[in-house]
Order: sequence, then structure tokens, then C-alpha cells
Amino acid sequence: MQRFIPATRLSSKTIYSHRWRRCFSQAALKEVDTKDGVKVPKMPSFDYSPPPYTGPSAAEILSKRKEYLSPSMFYFYNKPLNIVDGRMQYLFDEKGRRYLDAFGGIATVCCGHCHPDVVNAIVDQTKRLQHSTILYLNRAIADFAEALANKLPGNLKVVFFTNSGTEANELAMMMARLYTGCHDIISLRNAYHGNAAGTMGATAQSNWKFNVIQSGVHHAINPDPYRGVFGSEGEKYAKDVQDLIQFGTSGNIAGFISEATQASPSIFIPSFQLFIIYGVGGIVELAPGYLPAAYSTIKKAGGLCIADEVQAGFARTGSHFWGFENHGVVPDIVTMAKGIGNGIPLGAVVTTPEIAEVLTRRSYFNTFGGNPVCTAAGLAVLKVIEKEKLQDNAFVVGSYLKERLTALKDKYDLIGDVRGRGLMLGVELVTDHELKTPAKLETLHVMDQMKEIGVLVGKGGFYGNVFRITPPLCFSMEDADFLVDAMDYTMSKM
Amino acid sequence: MQRFIPATRLSSKTIYSHRWRRCFSQAALKEVDTKDGVKVPKMPSFDYSPPPYTGPSAAEILSKRKEYLSPSMFYFYNKPLNIVDGRMQYLFDEKGRRYLDAFGGIATVCCGHCHPDVVNAIVDQTKRLQHSTILYLNRAIADFAEALANKLPGNLKVVFFTNSGTEANELAMMMARLYTGCHDIISLRNAYHGNAAGTMGATAQSNWKFNVIQSGVHHAINPDPYRGVFGSEGEKYAKDVQDLIQFGTSGNIAGFISEATQASPSIFIPSFQLFIIYGVGGIVELAPGYLPAAYSTIKKAGGLCIADEVQAGFARTGSHFWGFENHGVVPDIVTMAKGIGNGIPLGAVVTTPEIAEVLTRRSYFNTFGGNPVCTAAGLAVLKVIEKEKLQDNAFVVGSYLKERLTALKDKYDLIGDVRGRGLMLGVELVTDHELKTPAKLETLHVMDQMKEIGVLVGKGGFYGNVFRITPPLCFSMEDADFLVDAMDYTMSKM
Repeated sequence: MQRFIPATRLSSKTIYSHRWRRCFSQAALKEVDTKDGVKVPKMPSFDYSPPPYTGPSAAEILSKRKEYLSPSMFYFYNKPLNIVDGRMQYLFDEKGRRYLDAFGGIATVCCGHCHPDVVNAIVDQTKRLQHSTILYLNRAIADFAEALANKLPGNLKVVFFTNSGTEANELAMMMARLYTGCHDIISLRNAYHGNAAGTMGATAQSNWKFNVIQSGVHHAINPDPYRGVFGSEGEKYAKDVQDLIQFGTSGNIAGFISEATQASPSIFIPSFQLFIIYGVGGIVELAPGYLPAAYSTIKKAGGLCIADEVQAGFARTGSHFWGFENHGVVPDIVTMAKGIGNGIPLGAVVTTPEIAEVLTRRSYFNTFGGNPVCTAAGLAVLKVIEKEKLQDNAFVVGSYLKERLTALKDKYDLIGDVRGRGLMLGVELVTDHELKTPAKLETLHVMDQMKEIGVLVGKGGFYGNVFRITPPLCFSMEDADFLVDAMDYTMSKM
Repeated sequence: MQRFIPATRLSSKTIYSHRWRRCFSQAALKEVDTKDGVKVPKMPSFDYSPPPYTGPSAAEILSKRKEYLSPSMFYFYNKPLNIVDGRMQYLFDEKGRRYLDAFGGIATVCCGHCHPDVVNAIVDQTKRLQHSTILYLNRAIADFAEALANKLPGNLKVVFFTNSGTEANELAMMMARLYTGCHDIISLRNAYHGNAAGTMGATAQSNWKFNVIQSGVHHAINPDPYRGVFGSEGEKYAKDVQDLIQFGTSGNIAGFISEATQASPSIFIPSFQLFIIYGVGGIVELAPGYLPAAYSTIKKAGGLCIADEVQAGFARTGSHFWGFENHGVVPDIVTMAKGIGNGIPLGAVVTTPEIAEVLTRRSYFNTFGGNPVCTAAGLAVLKVIEKEKLQDNAFVVGSYLKERLTALKDKYDLIGDVRGRGLMLGVELVTDHELKTPAKLETLHVMDQMKEIGVLVGKGGFYGNVFRITPPLCFSMEDADFLVDAMDYTMSKM
């Protein structure tokens, strides 16, 4: 078994950057690595060459970003990539170099970058009418609402369009509060649900919560099978929901909001020179049995159950179209964004006619929400998922990928956990299997080296030690092999 | 002088719909009106024919909307229009009938519907790369941020991109709270700033405020020159800001948020069968001297001044690029949306480097915010405004239009006030000049009849008695004449 350099032997940033960089440089990677006879993994072939890029260099863009954009804006890699083109599961940098995109713009690009059907829908609609507001009729919003409602179970038939997941969750939380007449909502520790005044309350990671008033959300213990106190015993965690209601509220509650698989964003605190990445969890599948028990408790207290499908929805988990279906529950309100439009700004809330009625008490309006271009794109996405059987592909390729990653776990002690389902997978790196000590710097190193080989993955976990693998759903078996081979190769060199 | 039927003589909906509908039917309008020799105004010619429409009818769309979309969704006109195409300042319905768009999708379409430069920017970028997240570099966001920062005065140089005006105002309010360490914010009665948990607090119209907790916003008296207690004496109104701070806060304040010209949305409460439209104000220009005095008071209390330029920005007021410039003030934070992308979902917050720094305390991220397609569109919009001198056009055509509308006010007692500047104008209808009694039903009638002639205007005002005229900035003198002639013709028949 090949071993890695334990993190304890790394005493400073200097050691990190010098020692590991020396291992294999970008130049070396472009050739067969003949030093020890192991070949550098090769990307599957792909018949597309992007048009030449004539824009500013990465350095020039970075300098403009520093001057004109938020200092809170962070990026991946010590030397960030200038991504200028995308085609299906591949991205291209300014020099035309191709990368396998195993992150999908954070689980957003579901059909593939610049999927022709989605591009055509956007282009055709953009040329006819971009925006006129819902004060006039247009077929695009109505057709997409119908198609979306038809993808949902039960009486989830009324659609509200927004421009983002934050807006969708803000609306869902408000509707739960209006419907029940209660203010208290329960969300899960580790959760990320948005960054507006209401949703930041539901977000439960200190790194994403600014020191402003966020009222009325209680944070239940995270049913995390890998790090949680009760392991995979979902029902035990669910008792915390009952406790919170009993001891933290009047006994009545507005609702409960959670993802089916916590996606958990990565965070870069820019004031540090080295990438210090936070973010709790990182693709945490809620322990089996948790959601049915928690939903039942919430319903007994008069609350509504909100399923945040911003990342897990739209066929990503493979076995089902929606993440909540993996847990055998039916929510009262479903929120979505990211994958819904393959990258176009679009979010939605779907609920029952009875709950939807609360919004007629006053007026609710969203200028861009449901505009013809975004809803035409959304409809095209649904059709592509269907036509290309992307849910099946997510299941087949995702299962294979998870299997191969699990085998890698047996090969390298560095891998503490492999989890998730479909094409929403997490790989957690630790320096000690018993203590589950996060392997922070090793994660950065592996991520960086995989990029050099041509694979882009995402990152999460409170200590930045979880790879988030959420590629476009057209990811192939060969892509899966290439990803795992690249990770294997990188770890073998450590 | 031609007289109108006083509203007091209208005792019921029945009288409204029968009596006025009888005056002139749609069929009659298509021909020269020979009854009294007055010709129906004719739309300026325009060399464009939309492609044939093969989609569902208005009735079919309406039926799908009723089944699958929010019951809170409202529309203009008893028989809503099915708008399928747009070209510059014109919209086309399913039968290819052309309408002059004097509303611009609520002050959103600034360059004109499907302006070729904006369409090309969107199409080109959509074909190369739609979305990869700001975790990688891309030129589009950096180029647009630079161009946008260069349009702003003072040290307003750091840009944050969002997907809507609501998201922009949420972020701005949070930044003010973080920067000052205070929670209290002052907004103006009549204001609309968004509908998420924070911005709904700043919104100050009962019809847009749901019965959920909205904390920390105090609402100052609206400096409305037409209906306000101090007429046009801005400084007198500003004393209310001092009073609110003195009696409603600890003496310290996070900030103040206001538009330069209140846009004030219209509201349709769908549970009523007839259109009952609410919405305070309706294109209310803040009384002269108000903003400098209010800003000074806020600054003395340690607060930040936020200019909501969602509607008044991007050259709409003609005399200046930003609404606040008409008042001789420089805000600490500027928020924008609507016109920024000619209809694409895009918002922004611009502030100083010092204030922007607060967001590095924790992490802030927006998945779609600043994506290549929307920012490429934004840059194209700025270039079109410049190249086609749309600000000058808004000034020249807007001034002429206001002059002609003011002349109409002298002709018809029904018009109580004509206000605004550039191509952001309001026409308030009253049944009594002294009492300023809102002419609700008359407004609906005029709006409906103008639509029959081919002119689409917007509507606002608490009683739904204010026409909102916010067309694409390519509006021509002939369009202005056609609009006024259509209004004149309609009123002459009442």
C-alpha cells in the first residue's frame, strides 16, 4: 500500500508549498511520468476545440477583481484558473487546455456546459422576447410551471419562480410562517440555505453567519453518519427536533427546512494568505430514518416541512429525481435553484394550492422571476434530463464512481469516508481514521495536483477536507475512471 | 374643454364596465373614428414584423397559470395580453399586433426589447460559457465591474453582483448594519425595497408587507410634493428623520435607504374580481432639498446612506445617470437591478472599499451572481446607453413628453398631477383637484382604452390612480406624441 506524508510532519505553510510542489510539477505532468514507470492518467478524448481566446490574461482579470469586486470573493487554487469555455462535462482555460469538470459550477450545470438544447432555448427566446413581466401573459412561464409541477408528487402543484435559491428559501420560510401563524423554524446544524435576512437564520454554519440579527430559527443536531454521535441511527437524531420544540418554542412551530443530502459550501476567508477553507459537513447524507421521524414530529407540532432541493434535486442523486424521495417523505414545500436552469439565474418554490393561498393575503411580486428566457431554459433542462436519461446515467456512473472511490479508500489511509449517492459524492480526507483528524493541507494538495492532471473537484467540510464531486450529469464511465485514476496517482506520489 | 364623467356618478362596477365599454369598442378603434370627426391616433411606423406565433392562446396560457402558478400572480387589463415578441420600444401580441411599450417591463428594458447589441452579448456568451462560478476567473464579471464602478462618483468602487433588486437591498442593509454595529434603519413611507425578510422591513406599504416579523426599520414621512403635508419643502420633511432617530433609536443608526424618485409598484389583490390596485405614491419625486438634509442627519447619527437605484438608475431620469445625482448627494452604498441588464436577472451593490471590507468578516457567496452571461449583458447595456446617447434621449424626449402631459393636465380636470423626470413620469388622476380624490376606475378605463389604441402604460398609487410611464429609453418624440394623443383621445371620449 502506498503511504502518504502524515499531516503532523507538516509544520508550516512553507513546508507545504515547497515539499509537495517539488513532488511533481505541472511540466512533468504533461509527459508520461517515467521516474517510477507510473503513467500520468490521461483524460478521455473529446471532439471539440474552443474558439481562440483573445481576452485579458488571468493576471489582468485577477487584478481587476481585486480592484473592483468584493474583497469577500474567493477562488479555488493558489493560481486560479481562467475558465473561458465549456462543453458538456469539460471546461477550457484561456490557453484552450481542457479540464474534466467534476464540480459542475457547484452542482449547477446538470445537462452539461452549453448543452445545445438549452443554449438553443435561451438563444431563441432571447431573440424574441427577454422580459415583459408577468403582468402580461407569455407561454414560457406557464409551460415550465406545468412541466415542473408534473415532476412533483402529491399535491405539490403550485409554482413560484424566483431568481435564486436564497430567494426561494426566503419565500418558503415566509409561507410556512404565514400558513401556521408561528415564527419558529428548525433547520439542521451544518445547513446552508441562503444569505438574506431570513435564510441566514436557517443557515447553520458560523462561517456563513454574519453578526446581524437572525431571529426564530433553532438548529437541530446534524444526523451525520460519519461524524454524528448516533452514527447512522436516524431516529435517535430526530429526537432532538422534538426536544427543540418542547424546550425552545411554545410547542407550535412554523416549519422545518433541510436538504436530503447536505451540500455544505466551502469557504475561503480571504484575509489568510493560504487557502483556509471552512464549511461544515460536505455532502452529508442524512442518516437513514431521520427525515421520516423529523417530518412526523414537525407535523404533530403543526409545522410545514420544507425540502431544500437546491443541490440534490433535478436527478442528481440518480436513484430519484428529488433528494427527499430517497428518504420516503413528501414535503409541504419544495425549493429549488442551481440545476433547475443549467446555470441561468432561476429558482422556484413549489407547494400545495392550500399553502400557496397565503400569498394572496398581501401582494407578492418578483420582477425577473419567471421571465421568458429563464423559464424557457428550465423547460429545456427538464426535457434534456428526460431525453438523455440523465437520472439513469447519474445512478449508473455515480454508483460506479462511488465504488471505485471506496476501493481507493481501502488503498489510502488518507481517505476517511466516501459518501453520497448518484453524482453527488463526498470524499473526506483524514490523517487519523480513529480520531477522524481532518487532513486540511493534504486536501489542498490533492485538489491542486488533480487540477494539474486535468480534473476539477469542489471542496467542503468544516476543515476543508472533503472533496465535493457534483459534475454535470452527462459524466461518463471514462470520466469516472479518469477522476479516480487522477486521485490515485496524486495520492500515490505523496 | 372636454369634460369627464365624475367618479361620484359611478355607483357600481356594472356602471363602470357597461357605460364606458359602450363608449368605443375595440373594433371601432381600428378605424378612423368618424362619429365626431376625431381621428384615432396612429402609432408611429416601425419596420419589423415578428415571426409567426404558433404557441398556445392567451386563454390556454391563462388556464395553465391558474392551475400551476401562484394565486398571488396578477396581470394588467381585464383581458390580459399575451405578449410574445419585443423589438426596441414595441411589443407584439400573439396575433402580431404591435403596442407601444411605455412601461418597459417596469422600468427594466432600458435599451429596448431585444436590442441587437445586448442580444448578441447574451448569445455569444451563452454559446461559450454560461456558468462556472466565481471560484474560477472569467473576464465578463471583471470587465463589467470595472465599467460599472467607473460610472459612479466618489469612492464608490467595489461591486457585488446579485440576481435581483431584493438581493441587492438585502446585502446593502446587512452591510450598513455590520459597518455601524447598529440594527436600526430608516426608510420612507411609500417605499418598496424588496420582499425578503430584511427588505420587507424597509418596504413601507401595507399591501406589500406580509404579517411576519420585520424588525429594525423605522418609516419616515414621505416627502411627497403632491400629497405630503409640507408640499415641496424638503427640509421640513427631513426633520422627521431626526425625530425618528431621537425618539425611536438609541441615537445611533445603521443607515437610511431610499429611492431618488419613488417608483411604487401597483398591486392587484386577486381575490377581488375587478382590478383593485393599490400601491402608494407612484413616481413620487422626493421634495427638493430632502435628500441632502436627510443624508446629513443620518451621517451625524453614524449611519450609512443607501441609494436604491433599481428603477431610477441607468440614465432613466435623463438629466443624470443616477437618480441620486439629481439631488446633489453622494451615497455610501448604491443598489441597482432592473435596467442594469435590460431584463436579464441581475442586481448589484456598489460601495466603498472601506465598507466592502465588512463582508470579509465571514463568508458571502452568490452562486449565479456575476455569472458570465448576465455580466456580459450588463456591459453591453452600458455600452448601448453610451453609444446611442440614451441618457440625452431620455432627457429630450422625457422633457417633451412631460410638457405635453402637463398641457393635457390643463385640458382635463381628471389629471391632478404630472411629475417625474426623464423617462420616469407619473400622471395622477383625481376626481377633485382640491381634495385630490383618487380617480380609481377612470384610471383603469383610460389604461384599458389606451391599450386598445396600442399604448401600454403602467400603474401605481395607493388607489391605483397613477400612470407610470417608464418606457425603454429609445422612446422617440413620435412615440411621445402617440402616447399623449392616445391619452387625449381617450379622455376626450369620457
